[in-house]
Amino acid sequence: MHAITIEQPGSFTWAEVPDPTPAEGEVVVEVTASAVNRADVMQRQGHYPPPPGAPPYPGLECSGVITAVGPGVTGHHVGERVCALLAGGGYAEQVAVPAGQLLPIPQGLSLQEAAALPEVACTVWSNVVDIARLRQGETLLVHGGGGGIGTFAIQLGKALGATVIATARESKHAQLKDLGADLTIDYTSTDFVEATRDFTDGRGANVILDIIGARYLDKNVAALAPDGRIAIIGMQGGRRGEFDLGALMTKRGSISAATLRARPIPDKARIVRGVHERIWPLVGAGTIRPIIDRTMAMSEAAEAHRLMESSDHIGKILLLP
Amino acid sequence: MHAITIEQPGSFTWAEVPDPTPAEGEVVVEVTASAVNRADVMQRQGHYPPPPGAPPYPGLECSGVITAVGPGVTGHHVGERVCALLAGGGYAEQVAVPAGQLLPIPQGLSLQEAAALPEVACTVWSNVVDIARLRQGETLLVHGGGGGIGTFAIQLGKALGATVIATARESKHAQLKDLGADLTIDYTSTDFVEATRDFTDGRGANVILDIIGARYLDKNVAALAPDGRIAIIGMQGGRRGEFDLGALMTKRGSISAATLRARPIPDKARIVRGVHERIWPLVGAGTIRPIIDRTMAMSEAAEAHRLMESSDHIGKILLLP
Repeated sequence: MHAITIEQPGSFTWAEVPDPTPAEGEVVVEVTASAVNRADVMQRQGHYPPPPGAPPYPGLECSGVITAVGPGVTGHHVGERVCALLAGGGYAEQVAVPAGQLLPIPQGLSLQEAAALPEVACTVWSNVVDIARLRQGETLLVHGGGGGIGTFAIQLGKALGATVIATARESKHAQLKDLGADLTIDYTSTDFVEATRDFTDGRGANVILDIIGARYLDKNVAALAPDGRIAIIGMQGGRRGEFDLGALMTKRGSISAATLRARPIPDKARIVRGVHERIWPLVGAGTIRPIIDRTMAMSEAAEAHRLMESSDHIGKILLLP
Repeated sequence: MHAITIEQPGSFTWAEVPDPTPAEGEVVVEVTASAVNRADVMQRQGHYPPPPGAPPYPGLECSGVITAVGPGVTGHHVGERVCALLAGGGYAEQVAVPAGQLLPIPQGLSLQEAAALPEVACTVWSNVVDIARLRQGETLLVHGGGGGIGTFAIQLGKALGATVIATARESKHAQLKDLGADLTIDYTSTDFVEATRDFTDGRGANVILDIIGARYLDKNVAALAPDGRIAIIGMQGGRRGEFDLGALMTKRGSISAATLRARPIPDKARIVRGVHERIWPLVGAGTIRPIIDRTMAMSEAAEAHRLMESSDHIGKILLLP
């Protein structure tokens, strides 16, 4: 088969590589589409090696058709249309994946569109619902509201009955409001702490989903409501963080930080089950839909990464082998 | 009545003050004993004003006998022996307290001994169980194992089936081992990160109960196990914290910070109910016992604070009016 290989940090090659075979508990999926995530950019740059046992190629999600079923797998069959959360290997014509990370194609979506969902759905669900426990009537602040994670988080927040605030460049605001954002903040010109406080009558956000990390840490604590939770899933603003612990204590706040990729396989299966039970019905009903900026050929993955790094896109960039 | 007043920051006076009267939902307790907490030291120094509506005198817990029942209180009567979580006012002959913050005297304890429990039981329960969700088989690291909080947390950790590691000066180690500590670390001579890792086969602690704050933040993250939780309840090592967010993210860790005193009254009542249901049976069975360093006259509260600040005590210092 073909896959995107990284011969040296920073560069991609669409190369001939060995076909995957399904290990115990795995299936092989013939990839219809994969999608770009920030973590893939880090992997391309050499900063984010795949976890042990994962395919060496980038790509954390895909959709496609099962072509082989490994030993010990029950409930799946060759020819089944699926999408999947991957630890890597989505930028390829085929990929082996633990069966617990498979999801059905949600009602009303094409096989191709479904590739836009697994990584964002699992990341947002595990952080906003499972860890930060967003509740109806609370306020969710989403940083990077225009990305794949952000566009999904806005919709999920609204579906859960929360008020949603999103930071994004001004050019993206109209589309984010269409998705349900109650307030959009242009972080290039406006202090999000003040804007969040103003919009919440001084209380602040109950949950903050953050992709910036160090640079926003102090500000996120300042923008937090009493008993609020900050869930950090990215470090685009650096990893050495400093903040006012006294302010966090006064608010009885918490800061969590997590990535999905390095979780143990059983833990991923638990998250995928939660997404299937709680999120897939919302997608099937049209309450949450995949936001796809564009589709590109997988052999042009380098160009897709340039677009991701420019942050000019809104939602997901799909790659077709 | 008499109470300890703070005429100027740093000094105490045992002065004649007006008797309290019970407001809606409150009772008045004639104080048998109160106990010293770190927060009282901060209040004496002028750094920790009582929350709105609380008595101006220090003292976050007491035991005694109900002498008056305010409007709207059911299920309590004059002459009842109780202990109580207070927002202040324990250093006095009488104190008014919301009825939701009353607890019965646990089986087998004297009225006086019971004054050693409410603040530590509520603080440890709300942080270690309610927030950090310590589970059987996990490892709990307790900083300041020799204090009132620490001696209680060691016993609760063992009662919940956890392995318990405690940091304390060497002179306190034998007593902390008697309480159940599986490992004691002399923080003055030993790196607790390395000692914790060694003792847990490199995994680290699942839950860390911390009273140091900023100075330990980076080390606590380093000593944390995957999916671990750091619960900060004090800032003896400063409030401006810096840490490696990347390390926290790799571990999928979380940091919470909370004080009990500023919580809304209904929230305190919820915590007190949890303590009554989950902790009081353990105290009644003798599994957890109050550790009392000594009792002193309340008029000598200044001397009791000197002892607290020296950290030469083990467990609680009781004050008798």
